[in-house]
Amino acid sequence: MSTASVQKLFELGTKIIGVGRNYAAHAKELGNAVPKAPVLFLKPTSSYLKNGGTIQIPHNESSLHHEVELAVLIGKKARDVPESSAMDFVAGYALALDMTARDLQSAAKSAGLPWTVAKGQDTFTPISPILPKTSVPNPDDLELWIKVDEEIRQKGSTKDMIFKLPFLISYISSLMTLFEGDVILTGTPPGVGPVKEGQKITAGITGLVDVEFNVEKRKISGN
Amino acid sequence: MSTASVQKLFELGTKIIGVGRNYAAHAKELGNAVPKAPVLFLKPTSSYLKNGGTIQIPHNESSLHHEVELAVLIGKKARDVPESSAMDFVAGYALALDMTARDLQSAAKSAGLPWTVAKGQDTFTPISPILPKTSVPNPDDLELWIKVDEEIRQKGSTKDMIFKLPFLISYISSLMTLFEGDVILTGTPPGVGPVKEGQKITAGITGLVDVEFNVEKRKISGN
Ligand SMILES: [Mg+2]
Ligand SMILES: [Mg+2]
Ligand SMILES: [Mg+2]
Repeated sequence: MSTASVQKLFELGTKIIGVGRNYAAHAKELGNAVPKAPVLFLKPTSSYLKNGGTIQIPHNESSLHHEVELAVLIGKKARDVPESSAMDFVAGYALALDMTARDLQSAAKSAGLPWTVAKGQDTFTPISPILPKTSVPNPDDLELWIKVDEEIRQKGSTKDMIFKLPFLISYISSLMTLFEGDVILTGTPPGVGPVKEGQKITAGITGLVDVEFNVEKRKISGN
Repeated sequence: MSTASVQKLFELGTKIIGVGRNYAAHAKELGNAVPKAPVLFLKPTSSYLKNGGTIQIPHNESSLHHEVELAVLIGKKARDVPESSAMDFVAGYALALDMTARDLQSAAKSAGLPWTVAKGQDTFTPISPILPKTSVPNPDDLELWIKVDEEIRQKGSTKDMIFKLPFLISYISSLMTLFEGDVILTGTPPGVGPVKEGQKITAGITGLVDVEFNVEKRKISGN
């Protein structure tokens, strides 16, 4: 598929499935055990932010964290697909940030509540243009990186994922139908941390794509 | 809007926002405190099931619970809308079931993990045809009911919601943009409980709509 057609497919998406704790070193840095099954959560497509956009820090939020991740774009309806054919359902890849209001997430975790408000607010899923699958020869060996201003915060390889892409697609499709345009965020390597008003984020997949985002406080003092 | 046009709008939807613990008596029956702010979670649109369909109990799941709820269909893009105009963004209503794998949810709550797998599997959001807004004169005074086989399990009134519709719409829109076709599930009155293979569910909004669903075990033994 061409760059234009994968981008169109992306616009059709109805869900973003996040995978938590998919890099052992990141699970450890937040004090979590390495999971036996993928930790899944949903983000709404209203949280997408295109390259060049501005990440908005919600009112009263002081710990909005970056998590740099490989995003996988689903190209056709997938339900109960075996690992052996799972990669046939991939249309492309992108670099995404799974922005997370860490204090809200911590409070939710303590209270046994959903992560929705911590993960799902507008601008919480900055994402690069979609790379057609054919332009990414080996998704299991990609270097992901993110800088805040001039400081490298995260640099990791998709080699270190605990659950690999065929397993993730197969597993998720056994729980819920994946539609064309849906996106899986595959987890983040270690080094997550806060971003502040006025900072500039740059991030990329080495040799394939890079993006930049500004960070501002949200003007309206909502909830 | 006509019945046909609200139904078309519904097909465009990209998210379902669930509200938890919005009836004091239901919060109490599960041993939860009445919340100070709405408890929000997401369900994917892949979980919808049309009237007459079959709810599938996942493999190894023994506590799939019914939660009967008023669903609110958003008719136009809503962001930071005040309570005073929030109802202008509603296009219609429906009767929905927020099917919940209670044991998975309990395990998630204990572990501080998301509710996604407990709430988001295929067939976990049975829903009636959409009722245009004009056919529902007072959404704050609707009787919701559900029967499993011949037994009434839940009967409650939307009068007893802790957070009313204008507040919910305003609050959610302060966190994430609502798009046309998005649906809010507004919480369930007391009486939730398990459904078993071979049972028949009937449910409705008294005087407005009723639906029926079969319950079967999922054939494929996925995750
Ligand atoms: Mg993440
Ligand atoms: Mg969604
Ligand atoms: Mg519910």
